Amino acid sequence: MDLIERLQWRYATKKMDPTKKVPKEKVERILEAVRLAPTSSGLQPFEVLVVTNAPLRAKIQAIANGQTQIGDGSHLLVFAAWDDYTAERINAMFDLTNAERGGTNEGWEAYRQMLLARYPQRGAEVNFQHAARQAYIGLGVALVAAAFEEVDSTPMEGFDADALDALLNLRARGLRSVAIMPLGYRDAANDWLAPLQKVRRPREQFITWLE
Amino acid sequence: MDLIERLQWRYATKKMDPTKKVPKEKVERILEAVRLAPTSSGLQPFEVLVVTNAPLRAKIQAIANGQTQIGDGSHLLVFAAWDDYTAERINAMFDLTNAERGGTNEGWEAYRQMLLARYPQRGAEVNFQHAARQAYIGLGVALVAAAFEEVDSTPMEGFDADALDALLNLRARGLRSVAIMPLGYRDAANDWLAPLQKVRRPREQFITWLE
Repeated sequence: MDLIERLQWRYATKKMDPTKKVPKEKVERILEAVRLAPTSSGLQPFEVLVVTNAPLRAKIQAIANGQTQIGDGSHLLVFAAWDDYTAERINAMFDLTNAERGGTNEGWEAYRQMLLARYPQRGAEVNFQHAARQAYIGLGVALVAAAFEEVDSTPMEGFDADALDALLNLRARGLRSVAIMPLGYRDAANDWLAPLQKVRRPREQFITWLE
Repeated sequence: MDLIERLQWRYATKKMDPTKKVPKEKVERILEAVRLAPTSSGLQPFEVLVVTNAPLRAKIQAIANGQTQIGDGSHLLVFAAWDDYTAERINAMFDLTNAERGGTNEGWEAYRQMLLARYPQRGAEVNFQHAARQAYIGLGVALVAAAFEEVDSTPMEGFDADALDALLNLRARGLRSVAIMPLGYRDAANDWLAPLQKVRRPREQFITWLE
């Protein structure tokens, strides 16, 4: 299957089969794809938590409108964005890049200084919103990666982010949850959405060519 | 090549070859992948503009820090998010869904009413930020799709969004530009980034397992 067929195959699974577990090597490949996703200035301003612990998933389900995929799937990905861009975080990424590439250059260091002069001063809320967008690039890559592994996934925003941050102690790590995604296998016979057609706006309402 | 190899192959191309043009069928497949990308509640709160017109791309390059890929690539994708969620927009998507699926049901209509009661009242800025995140899912899918087409791409935020909105008359259409992405082919010999290693945080700094 090519990418478009994978995207047609996937859907926001509403009922997952609790007896089926996603193999760890598939989850690892999905996570690796997310890790490779590009982000603004390469800062990767988010982290991913992988919750398999069943009692913990039950607690998360309770603060996520009871959505059963959280309990019935085998893995829950939590996308947690940086709460702010700090000089420490920016420097850490530039230092890592220099170390990995075995050197630096003037343009790169000037770019570091530009970010250091601009980002921390913008304020935490602006920076968090920016970081959250980068996490959504990762979310997009994750759902493509899951489809390639023939693993079902359901991107979710319908949860109490403050409660989840408290439950997972994210704020102390400078993180804020922005999206969650259960991984598992569809229980098609019991999923009301499974037989329904995928609906998207027609191309002429979605795309404009300026030629 | 599998997905991970595609993600390793791609990079934020800094120098594109102005003599090479991406075939239209490849661009169409990239756009179709973006159209199929999932979004919150299936609302698809963004549009994509495809700019091939060279004088227009030159104007955009001028308000995007002179980044040469905009002129040297053959196609420029502009991701433009809804400036707000209105009742009209929400109803249009639910009506389209009912028409495509040939019917409706109580749960779906209750969900429509919930969105109508909540979204328009949240205010345009909250809604725009939410819509922008959905556009970034599309951006993530677009860059994966480009990599599968062996087309180079460079996701960019470094442009004057207000100036671009004015140039493309986006505000009158209820849209705000959030990201742009030139498509083209790398000029590896003249791209400082091409030979350098891709750098990402190590897995242990990016992923936390809660088992």
